[in-house]
Amino acid sequence: MSRTLSEHLIAAFDGEADAPLVVAYSGGPDSTALLHAIATLPRRPSLRAVHVDHGLHAESGLWAMHCRRFCESLDVPLEVVRVSVDLSRGEGMEAAARRARRAAFVAQLRPGERLLLAHHRDDQVETVLLKLLRGAGPEGLGGMRERRPLGAGEQWRPLLDLPREALAAHVARHALDTVHDPSNDDPRVARAFLRASVMPALAELWPQASRSIVHSARLCREAADTLREAWMPALAELKARDGSLDAAGWLLLPEALRWPVLDQWLHEAGLQAPTGAQRDALERQVREAGADRLPQIGWLDTEVRLWRGRLWALPRLAPFAAGWETRWHGEPIDLPGGGTLSLGDGRLGHPLLVRYRRGGETLRPAGDRHTRELRDLFQRGGVPPWGRPRVPIVTGEDGRILAVGDRWLSEEAVGMFEAVGGGLRWTR
Amino acid sequence: MSRTLSEHLIAAFDGEADAPLVVAYSGGPDSTALLHAIATLPRRPSLRAVHVDHGLHAESGLWAMHCRRFCESLDVPLEVVRVSVDLSRGEGMEAAARRARRAAFVAQLRPGERLLLAHHRDDQVETVLLKLLRGAGPEGLGGMRERRPLGAGEQWRPLLDLPREALAAHVARHALDTVHDPSNDDPRVARAFLRASVMPALAELWPQASRSIVHSARLCREAADTLREAWMPALAELKARDGSLDAAGWLLLPEALRWPVLDQWLHEAGLQAPTGAQRDALERQVREAGADRLPQIGWLDTEVRLWRGRLWALPRLAPFAAGWETRWHGEPIDLPGGGTLSLGDGRLGHPLLVRYRRGGETLRPAGDRHTRELRDLFQRGGVPPWGRPRVPIVTGEDGRILAVGDRWLSEEAVGMFEAVGGGLRWTR
Repeated sequence: MSRTLSEHLIAAFDGEADAPLVVAYSGGPDSTALLHAIATLPRRPSLRAVHVDHGLHAESGLWAMHCRRFCESLDVPLEVVRVSVDLSRGEGMEAAARRARRAAFVAQLRPGERLLLAHHRDDQVETVLLKLLRGAGPEGLGGMRERRPLGAGEQWRPLLDLPREALAAHVARHALDTVHDPSNDDPRVARAFLRASVMPALAELWPQASRSIVHSARLCREAADTLREAWMPALAELKARDGSLDAAGWLLLPEALRWPVLDQWLHEAGLQAPTGAQRDALERQVREAGADRLPQIGWLDTEVRLWRGRLWALPRLAPFAAGWETRWHGEPIDLPGGGTLSLGDGRLGHPLLVRYRRGGETLRPAGDRHTRELRDLFQRGGVPPWGRPRVPIVTGEDGRILAVGDRWLSEEAVGMFEAVGGGLRWTR
Repeated sequence: MSRTLSEHLIAAFDGEADAPLVVAYSGGPDSTALLHAIATLPRRPSLRAVHVDHGLHAESGLWAMHCRRFCESLDVPLEVVRVSVDLSRGEGMEAAARRARRAAFVAQLRPGERLLLAHHRDDQVETVLLKLLRGAGPEGLGGMRERRPLGAGEQWRPLLDLPREALAAHVARHALDTVHDPSNDDPRVARAFLRASVMPALAELWPQASRSIVHSARLCREAADTLREAWMPALAELKARDGSLDAAGWLLLPEALRWPVLDQWLHEAGLQAPTGAQRDALERQVREAGADRLPQIGWLDTEVRLWRGRLWALPRLAPFAAGWETRWHGEPIDLPGGGTLSLGDGRLGHPLLVRYRRGGETLRPAGDRHTRELRDLFQRGGVPPWGRPRVPIVTGEDGRILAVGDRWLSEEAVGMFEAVGGGLRWTR
């Protein structure tokens, strides 16, 4: 009764533009089935494959070799891309691997090419449940998008309506060799757990569970896309050139627009969206913020702060030793609080000190008639409170303040740096 | 750390209008906790209780007696309402009981009263999961509404953010007697199954599952409400006075509006919304309908048909014996195909026959110069195809057609019925 993978693909490709196809081929059963089914279609399209080696398993090199052999047997060109997975962002192994993979595909994709992913209906169901378990709204509950632009081309998941068993049947019918990734069975991995424990329980009473959940996802996706037309202008209005967001205006948005606006704002800054509980906490903190408090809330590698009536999104800053200090002759140095300090080509004959703020510092900036407290300089200069402890301070060996960041320099400092042909630069 | 039920209620009532409260009191642990907590608040509001006896359990009479005793002990007036649950609509026991209960509350509620339901966070989570398993969109995934108008008053669920354990703790702390409804443990009942099998599995890996799911629901509710503003005008435009819906216009709506419009249209007709799979089938049938086909799709007690470019929603019609026939002297008779045929006060001295269409019948309606085939009368009269087999036909004993429904009568019939002082009426 149900369609085979090949029948499904023939129907899916019908009426599609003849874009050259690139199959994301992990060697696992799903992408193996997709790749083989396309390669053996009666009218085979232009086709190549990309295998991403995450280097996370001892055997991943063997898997890449297997993929080479399989592609050779199908006469499909294969590119193997080795990536390194950055686990420092605290987002978990799966998410980090996905990020690395995506970057590799973006780099690989040539103009007009279409990257095919083998995600099927059961994957989509798992995605929707995971979103629900994170407290997502219609955008998240919409699950994986079937199509979206990717790098120079686009990405397409043509199998989102097809159950996993259709892919497994293809693998079995053609006795295809596939790679077995043991992490897919690890019950500590969320998807594997859903697959092994939750979905079978649901299917007992609701045999149509997967179909229904995918249908819910489609309705949510449509709703989110329709709402997007309402909130995109709101985001444009609330977001300033410096990237901050008008907090009061944001709070006034209806909830259905407020959270998509926040998510998109974070997304544009390369940061991650909060979970349900984090949203609650964020909204409460912003709503209850008094003039004397500095609300701040963080998750994973993201921090959101409220300052001067605006929301600021930042990557989470690594802690550093505030008491740090070093001697400096003008050579470029990486600062523990972030950024690099340099003097261009200029080198000083006698050393200065670089350190951070300790309190009570003052400076008379060149061209200013008054000696100023650093606190005043920072405030009038709009340096946000969280940035102030990280602004490097250059002093003489006797401790007199010469420069605060590369923005406030004493007359002495201006002369000193000019004399050695250098300009003070703090690049962040 | 977490709030007790009483603390939660004090916070919930704070700032609310002083409407007289009516607690929907089943005798189970949740409504017992709610009723007791309100009755023992430091500032007790105006309060009464309603117990609905569904008569579905052998012991339900005893439960009602228990409820009386408990309310007496709290000095809370109690109304016990006995309802009969109509299982003929095919919607399942739970839904039928809910429908009967709701009707009883509507009848009970006095102007300005506020009906309190004890639904808590875990109930809401189950509702959302059940909606997901039916393929619902944001409206359904929004779960139970916290407030809505009901009859002469309104309905309020003040505990949707409170976990079940807070209610159970109240029952335990005050050693309250509660009624145990065994159907709450029946694993064949969807909610009991979720509670016993699915939620514990989820909680293993996601201890915050309930909180997250309720948060998702809130976002979906907001999204659905925002979208409603877009689709309500569309429904008003597409729906005709006869209750039918412009099919082409409906198909042109974006999906995010199309399904809420259909659901609301059905709701206004007292009919039920389709599941995900049924939606797919409905849309496909309407889209692919040729001029020569009569698409029709049904679920539970609802049927939707396409005719003359419009969608028609009907309660599902019970099948009947098309060959049925009876002798008739003008007395009111219930017809097997629906409705009652009568002649007012008129009685005929000689019997006529009442039957249904068999094919090939003709009639010359009074005032018409031509004899007409029934097919033509039905078509020109706009009788929809599904209604035609159910239009009663009155004939003489020799088989000559005298009347088709109460709309087309021969000259002889007009005279005959007038002579006995009656008017032919077919009430549906």
